[in-house]
Formats: sequence, C-alpha cells, structure tokens
Amino acid sequence: MNIYHNLKPGETISQKIVNAIRTVAGEAKVALHEPIFKGNEWSYLKDCLDSGYVSSIGQYVEQFENQVCEFTGSKYAVAVVSGTAALHLGLLVGGIKPNEEVLIPSLTFIATANAVSYCGAVPHFVDVSEVNLGIDAKKLRTYLRKISIMEDGYCINKFTGRPIKAVVPMHVFGHPCDLSALLEISKEFNIILIEDAAEAIGSLYENKHVGTYGKLGIFSFNGNKTITTGGGGMILTDDILIAQKAKHLSTTAKKAHPFKYLHDEIGFNYRMPNLNAALGCAQLEQLPNILSKKRELFKIYSEVFSDISEIEIFKEPLCSRSNYWLQTLLLKEKFTEYQEDIITSCIEAGINVRPAWTPLHQLSVFETSPASPMLTTSSLVKRIINIPSSVGLI
Amino acid sequence: MNIYHNLKPGETISQKIVNAIRTVAGEAKVALHEPIFKGNEWSYLKDCLDSGYVSSIGQYVEQFENQVCEFTGSKYAVAVVSGTAALHLGLLVGGIKPNEEVLIPSLTFIATANAVSYCGAVPHFVDVSEVNLGIDAKKLRTYLRKISIMEDGYCINKFTGRPIKAVVPMHVFGHPCDLSALLEISKEFNIILIEDAAEAIGSLYENKHVGTYGKLGIFSFNGNKTITTGGGGMILTDDILIAQKAKHLSTTAKKAHPFKYLHDEIGFNYRMPNLNAALGCAQLEQLPNILSKKRELFKIYSEVFSDISEIEIFKEPLCSRSNYWLQTLLLKEKFTEYQEDIITSCIEAGINVRPAWTPLHQLSVFETSPASPMLTTSSLVKRIINIPSSVGLI
Repeated sequence: MNIYHNLKPGETISQKIVNAIRTVAGEAKVALHEPIFKGNEWSYLKDCLDSGYVSSIGQYVEQFENQVCEFTGSKYAVAVVSGTAALHLGLLVGGIKPNEEVLIPSLTFIATANAVSYCGAVPHFVDVSEVNLGIDAKKLRTYLRKISIMEDGYCINKFTGRPIKAVVPMHVFGHPCDLSALLEISKEFNIILIEDAAEAIGSLYENKHVGTYGKLGIFSFNGNKTITTGGGGMILTDDILIAQKAKHLSTTAKKAHPFKYLHDEIGFNYRMPNLNAALGCAQLEQLPNILSKKRELFKIYSEVFSDISEIEIFKEPLCSRSNYWLQTLLLKEKFTEYQEDIITSCIEAGINVRPAWTPLHQLSVFETSPASPMLTTSSLVKRIINIPSSVGLI
Repeated sequence: MNIYHNLKPGETISQKIVNAIRTVAGEAKVALHEPIFKGNEWSYLKDCLDSGYVSSIGQYVEQFENQVCEFTGSKYAVAVVSGTAALHLGLLVGGIKPNEEVLIPSLTFIATANAVSYCGAVPHFVDVSEVNLGIDAKKLRTYLRKISIMEDGYCINKFTGRPIKAVVPMHVFGHPCDLSALLEISKEFNIILIEDAAEAIGSLYENKHVGTYGKLGIFSFNGNKTITTGGGGMILTDDILIAQKAKHLSTTAKKAHPFKYLHDEIGFNYRMPNLNAALGCAQLEQLPNILSKKRELFKIYSEVFSDISEIEIFKEPLCSRSNYWLQTLLLKEKFTEYQEDIITSCIEAGINVRPAWTPLHQLSVFETSPASPMLTTSSLVKRIINIPSSVGLI
C-alpha cells in the first residue's frame, strides 16, 4: 500500500522527507544545528571567572589562536568578535580600498557583501558551481576576460571603470571551492584571493586546510557553526605583516607604550574576549571528534535518502574533505516547485530546515552592484534545503 | 624627621603618592581596575552551556536588556558586542550621515571619535570643564555662536560648510557632564544629544541615570568597566523606533520571516552573545553593592590623600552622583612636571596607574578634524592620574 496515495505530489515529497529526517532525528523537535559542550568548556569558563580575566587580556585568546594555527597549518591567527569582523578586517589588511570591486558569490551569507561595503568597496557578484556550491572558477575566468581589461598590471572593470581588486570565495556549508583554479585566476588577473571560510573549519582542499590558500582566510565561530565561541571569528594568514596589522587594527590601533594612549590609525574594537576564547579552546579540542561524527551523519542521511528519487544529498567535491557543517538536500530540477512546501512541512513538524540565502544580487540593497549572469545560482537557490546537522543527532 | 629629605621634589611627591596608595591597596601588585565575580556568574554561565544557548539566541540577552532598563529607567535597551559598536550603531540610528560633523570632547577614549569616522562623519573636538571633566557647556555655546550659522534650521560650521549634526558628551571616569546645559545647547542649535556613558553605569545627574537624557545613550561592559560582560555594550533610548532600528541593524538587518533570508539594509553583526549577556545579568545584580563600595573607596582615598598638598582627589560634580569608576588624582598646576615621574614610580612599585588619554585633537589621525581652543583639556591632561579603583581593594 502506498501511504502517500491521498497526498498531492508536493505533499508526497514533503512527507517522505519529513519521515526520512525523523528516522534519523527522532520524533522530538529538532534544531538545524546545535553546538555540543562535552569537553573542557565549563572548566575553562570557570577558570576565567576564578582568575578575573574575562575580557581582552587573558591567556585563552593567544592559546586559541595557537591551537587554530596548529590545527590548520596557518602560520598566524588573529581572534576577533565575529566572522563579519574577521571579513571586514581581512579586507582592510588585504588592501581593499574605497571604490574598488570585490568579486564574491551571490550565493553566500550577507556578511561577505556587508564587509565589502564597510570598506567603501563594491561587491561584484558572480555565479557558483553545481559541483561545490562556491564560485565557479571556469565561468569566472570567461566572465573576467569579457568584462575586464588589464591596465598597468591591474584588472579594471571595463563597464564601471573601477579596479577589480580581490576575489572572496565562500566555502558554502563547509564544502571547499576549487581553490587551485581560483588561485590561477588570482594570478592571471592580479587580484587578491581572500577565503571566506566562515563555515569551513575542518574542511580540506587537496589535503590542506581551507582558509590557508589565499592571502588570508577567515573563520566564524558563531553559535550555529561547527565549533563556537558564542560569537567570534578568526583571521588566518601566513604573512606576519598582515597578522600584525590585523591585530593592531582589532585593538583600536593602539601603539605599545607602558602607559600612554597613542593610536596611529582609525582602529576597531574587534578583539575576542578571553571568556569567548576559553570556550573556543575547549571546542577546538573536540573538533576532530565532531568532524568524524559529521561525516557519519552524512553517511546515515545518504542511506536514508537513497530511495527518495526527487532529491539527492550533497556530497563533498572531488579533491576535498568537507566538514559537512550543514547537511544539504538538493531537489532535482523538476521538483523545485515543492521546495517551499517541503520547508514549511518540516518546520510544522518541528524539524528546523532552511533554504539557502536569497541570492545577494537580488536584494534591493545591492541592486546597483555589478553581477554576472546567475544561471546556476538561480537554479541552486530553488533546490537547496539544509536539514538538521547537529552532532548530537548521532 | 622628614623621610623625604634625600629626595628631589618630584621624587618626594611620587613617594608620597606611592605610600598613600599602598596604605589602601597593600604591598602586593595592584591593578588599575579588576572586576569581581561574587554573584551568580558561575550559575548563569553554566546554564548557557547546559542549555546549549551561548550565542545570539538565548534568554540572557533580553533579560540583561530588561534589567538595564529597570536599573536606569530607560524604556528600551539593545545589547551589542562592545561600547564601540554601541556608539557606531547609536550614531547611525541617531541619524548621523557622511560629511556631517559631530561635536565630541578631545579628552575621551578614541572609540568616541572612531565611531564618528565609521559613519563617514567628522569628529569636531571641543574643550572640557574642570568641574566635571566632560564637555564645557558654557564654552561650547560661545564657540558655536562664533563658528556656526543656522541655515534652514540646521547648524552649519561656517568654516567647513558642513552641518554640525550632533554632540556626544562623554561622562569621563563616570562623572556626569552638565546635561541640563548640554540639552539647552542641543535645542538652541538643533543638534542631537547622544550620551557616551561608556564609563558611567550607575551614575546619576539630578537623580536621573546618565545615558537617558539624550536621544540615546550608550554603555560599555568591557573588562575594565564597573561591571563587565567580557566585551559588550548597550544602547539606551526611550524611542521605540530608535530601539527597533538599532536591534535590526545589529542583527544584519534581517527581516522577520520563518525561513527566508531577506535583508533590507547594510547591517552589522553586533548582537551580544548569550554567554556574555549571562555574565552581565549576574554582574548587574551586584551593581548596587559595587557602587556603594566605590563611594567608600573614594572616601578612603580622600582621607589618605588629604595631607598631600600637591594633589587633590577628583570629586563628583554638583547635582551628580558618580559611579566613581576610576578614582582620579589631579595634580595642582605647578606640579604638572612631576606627572610622568609619579606614573612611572607607581608602575615600578607594582601599582597600576595611568594618565588620561592623549587628547584626540593631538593625534595625527585626526589632524584634519576641526577643534576648538583646548585650554582646559591641555591643562587637565598634564594633571590627571587614575589610581587603582577595584572594588576588591576594600
């Protein structure tokens, strides 16, 4: 007997998906992504209170930075208050100036574009790839050859007259972009590569950690990420001058002096508090275990969804090892009309799922920003559904 | 016998001050300002871990905002990641636009001026008062009458042609400015009053909490403040539209929707994490006790310093009740040459003291900003020495 015989086609798919998630997540209400605190979190937080060091001074900030360097292979790391702050500072120390253009995917969280705006620069949106959900390198090369010219060694947008200064790929849901191809493009057009690895701690591209390929990279440690500091972010770089400059700007550009207050630039108050870094230290200790559980969850979902023909579950790209931050269903093209029904059915059933972000080039706030054709972005946005991905599910 | 008979005059003063502080602070190394965690800090932080809510979602953020409203009498409060973020958002929602001028004291922490710069606006530095260390209202009125004209109801700087849009008094070391006079000036010149109460939680002007007089006010909860959230800040306002706008901008300007990502402005990621708010809730519970101890410390220091004729200890202005965040020595004019020796002697003796900030109009980064004559600022900066002020000292 077909249990779906009384349902309309969309409802059938929705019910099948609700049921499939239920087999993994159980009958209770389930979040999209919850952190787990099963290590030294309490001990380190308590130590902050006992020592009185909860703010910008304290051992955990440096310890957290060192641990991240060790884990990722990055030479330097600078902890800040959010992934957005990391992007903002990263673009500034990367050399982005007002009225320059920065290539970013349209399919990303708005922080990537906001950070470009904070610098007085202009986001220039480009299309993404079906294979890795990040910037489509092949399309980007073709596009840049068409819309830009090289003048005195710099890439200039022929239509706006503005320099195209950088490209900021985002590793969507933790899946690495095609960094080899993007590095080549970065060289060919003399544009800076800055990696928005906000969602990708633990993800490798060709066995090297993402965020360490560009001039610099950034992480987010927001509460919904693979590991969290409450709110937080980090800049990664192998360039000591970039690291020093980022740290300087994150601490109000205050010059070292035993007691005088001297500042040599417009700086920011972006330094991560010790309290939040303490949480990060404990979380990072658990990351290998978290990553292995996230891969396991992917396998379980793959199994469970294998006989639902309307969707596929998104798998890490070739040459990559993804952290599988958010597990992702991709609706097949002919079933996109059911996306909203699936999402609302899940939410009504107490299962927190979500679509991808509204493509940024479609937001009125960025309507004057340049944008490439968006064929794949437009398709993917109708097809992506993120499903509950907490480690606690298994 | 005079124990100072072998010392040069400067050393004599320094030794007397070191000895006086030692009678209060003891012989061990002593910080300028340390927080105390003797309330529910442990319990609330542990609750964050137990519940899993450490980030932007969680009960403590709203609870902290409500507690601050209750304590200050403000109708609305919006918690953010730092005092700097509160100033930045406050200026934006207050209506500051690029190329407008904002009157701020030169004698303030650089965050006040940086926040103006983040808005693309220009800090316009003015002199302060001996009586309260904040903007000298009488001088400001005279100055504005001289340098500005009213055009179509707006105050325009005659020399730069730019609108003078707002005045941002800072309540230095917790001592309230002359808010009545500043409110009058605000009306006379049609400029917005925004209070930088970063250092002044617990301070009253005419029995009403500072930060609640202007269109909006801000607090800082940095680790060195009277109470701390690790890093944090807050916007206070009685205007619901301002509060809503601040909250909206602090949360990436994301519109409410069950699952869609729609943002209608360039927003920020400034929301205070639940973990930090939890600390704030516990700290705020202790604030009345902290404030009473800070007054007690002032009395003890007053006694101890009463027979050192070269200095006076700064007392709250008339009509005000100060939180006495940082206890402040004022060197008399003819002893200013000994300021640096006193500071280095204290630091060498393990007593953490500090001078005031370098007046901002003297920093090269603000050298193109307009500035009034700075007679009192120039005098005070040579005379101020903040001495250890932790509640733990008594």
